[in-house]
Amino acid sequence: MTPGNQTGNENFPARVLVVGAGAIGSFYGGKLARAGADVSVVCRSDYEVVIAKGFKVKSVMGDFDFMPSRVLKSAAEYEDEPDYIIVSLKVLPEVNTVELIRPAVYRDTAIVLLQNGIDIEKPVAEAFPRNELISGLAFVCVNRVGPGEVEHLDYGRVVLGMYPTGVSRKTKALAELFNRSGIPCKVHEDIVKARWQKLIWNAPFNPISVLGGGISTEEMLDQEETALLARRVMEEVRAVAASEGHVLDESVVDQNINDTVKMKPYKTSMLLDYEAKRPMEVEAILGNALRIARKNGVFVCHMQTLYALLKSVDIKNLASA
Amino acid sequence: MTPGNQTGNENFPARVLVVGAGAIGSFYGGKLARAGADVSVVCRSDYEVVIAKGFKVKSVMGDFDFMPSRVLKSAAEYEDEPDYIIVSLKVLPEVNTVELIRPAVYRDTAIVLLQNGIDIEKPVAEAFPRNELISGLAFVCVNRVGPGEVEHLDYGRVVLGMYPTGVSRKTKALAELFNRSGIPCKVHEDIVKARWQKLIWNAPFNPISVLGGGISTEEMLDQEETALLARRVMEEVRAVAASEGHVLDESVVDQNINDTVKMKPYKTSMLLDYEAKRPMEVEAILGNALRIARKNGVFVCHMQTLYALLKSVDIKNLASA
Repeated sequence: MTPGNQTGNENFPARVLVVGAGAIGSFYGGKLARAGADVSVVCRSDYEVVIAKGFKVKSVMGDFDFMPSRVLKSAAEYEDEPDYIIVSLKVLPEVNTVELIRPAVYRDTAIVLLQNGIDIEKPVAEAFPRNELISGLAFVCVNRVGPGEVEHLDYGRVVLGMYPTGVSRKTKALAELFNRSGIPCKVHEDIVKARWQKLIWNAPFNPISVLGGGISTEEMLDQEETALLARRVMEEVRAVAASEGHVLDESVVDQNINDTVKMKPYKTSMLLDYEAKRPMEVEAILGNALRIARKNGVFVCHMQTLYALLKSVDIKNLASA
Repeated sequence: MTPGNQTGNENFPARVLVVGAGAIGSFYGGKLARAGADVSVVCRSDYEVVIAKGFKVKSVMGDFDFMPSRVLKSAAEYEDEPDYIIVSLKVLPEVNTVELIRPAVYRDTAIVLLQNGIDIEKPVAEAFPRNELISGLAFVCVNRVGPGEVEHLDYGRVVLGMYPTGVSRKTKALAELFNRSGIPCKVHEDIVKARWQKLIWNAPFNPISVLGGGISTEEMLDQEETALLARRVMEEVRAVAASEGHVLDESVVDQNINDTVKMKPYKTSMLLDYEAKRPMEVEAILGNALRIARKNGVFVCHMQTLYALLKSVDIKNLASA
């Protein structure tokens, strides 16, 4: 083997530890494993089923089974030094990501946050200042349908970038691995801006789908008032992003609406969480953006209203679970 | 009998027809009957029970039974000329108040709208331009608990005034009848202003109680965000009222909050309607105020958000009934 063959592959197969093997984690973990990575998972709720039989993934891209290298109850059980820890936990105040991953974070471990929302990187960046932190966005419609069973309904592309900015060699290597697995993956020099761009969709559609009485994207856009509300929230997200220096073209509003009109009617992930009486990502999707708006003096009355109501609904919903 | 004894009593006993004998209509109708009025009711859903046994009212002011003079299925069956038609129907787009009362409206009939909301008088005023139109507000907590059964939990006072302004002899006579029945009743020279004042409470508390996941007044005020939202909606109602020439002192906001803090935890009537899968008064409580805000160029983003969500929830709720 010549040294040339090793370029960018010195850690091949890449050792990947997925923390939070729900729908997102097991789907992408499985894909990376099929591309040749050595993928282990920390999996708590479905541990017994997964250690016995692995994951069954029903996917529009083709069904597959995924048997992780190791199935662990906690990161402390991982006996190797991972090249990547992929965090695909829900972003919730009660989930202490830092402590959940700490036992498996080594000097050369890159931490990858494949999660929703805005301003979610800070605690991890502060806890592991010497580690490479890759922030990632998954544009995918994938649901857990049973213990160890996942259904991938649509989309799938991933965007990765270093936090707060830039693209590292390791970012590129992971993107390459995703692409090799069939998952379209791009690197982004300004991942925080990409997060704001994604929030343009998430901030209206997720909360309104729940607060509107459990409505699909189609129902939301068919009703004049909720469609208008969605646009107004998008404008507010644009204003907050701009106040942080991330200028998103005004065309993003029309574009997000038009793209959604073309989608099949879709229940948002927040609505699925609500219906299953699981906690909703209220802070990651709305609360953090509101705190930035307040800090920068941006008036966001529609988001503020959604936030107050959604937080209340979340509390009542969990209390009735 | 000297003529002096007749003053203000030439129609004693007053002939009253209550159209919409739900909780409000049967409670106040019963009270007026006990004060000596001749009270008949149009009562559709509980007709069989009411014609057989009348109404049973359990009240914090003392329980009582109410056997109307006549129990009717429609106003057309009323064979007399009523002095007052008291309309206590819900204010809903699908309820055609004008046609429901038309058969019993004679030259000297005063129409009394004992209903919630803002700008609800117009259709009746336009349909019966020669009749006296009295607009009324009931500050009461009263619920239908079974067929012909009503529970009066708290409060009870009534405010009456001519629409659009003034106080007539008949307004005063009705107020006197209410007072004689034990219901504190005041006349108001500017009833539309009084409606705006009541909307200060209704516009935030009713919608937020539903949209916040089914929360009581206490829960709403205990949660920082929903309490703040309630205040903001109150400020918006004040602004819209002011744009119509009805200036409400800024102290009304604190006063409404403080009064509500002192109340026992209370499910709003809108929340009770929602839970029973009955239509909610979305237009009377929010829609009409929003249309006035738009006409006058008042920016009411919190109310707008509540309206869009509430309208959607109402549709979903009724579809699932």
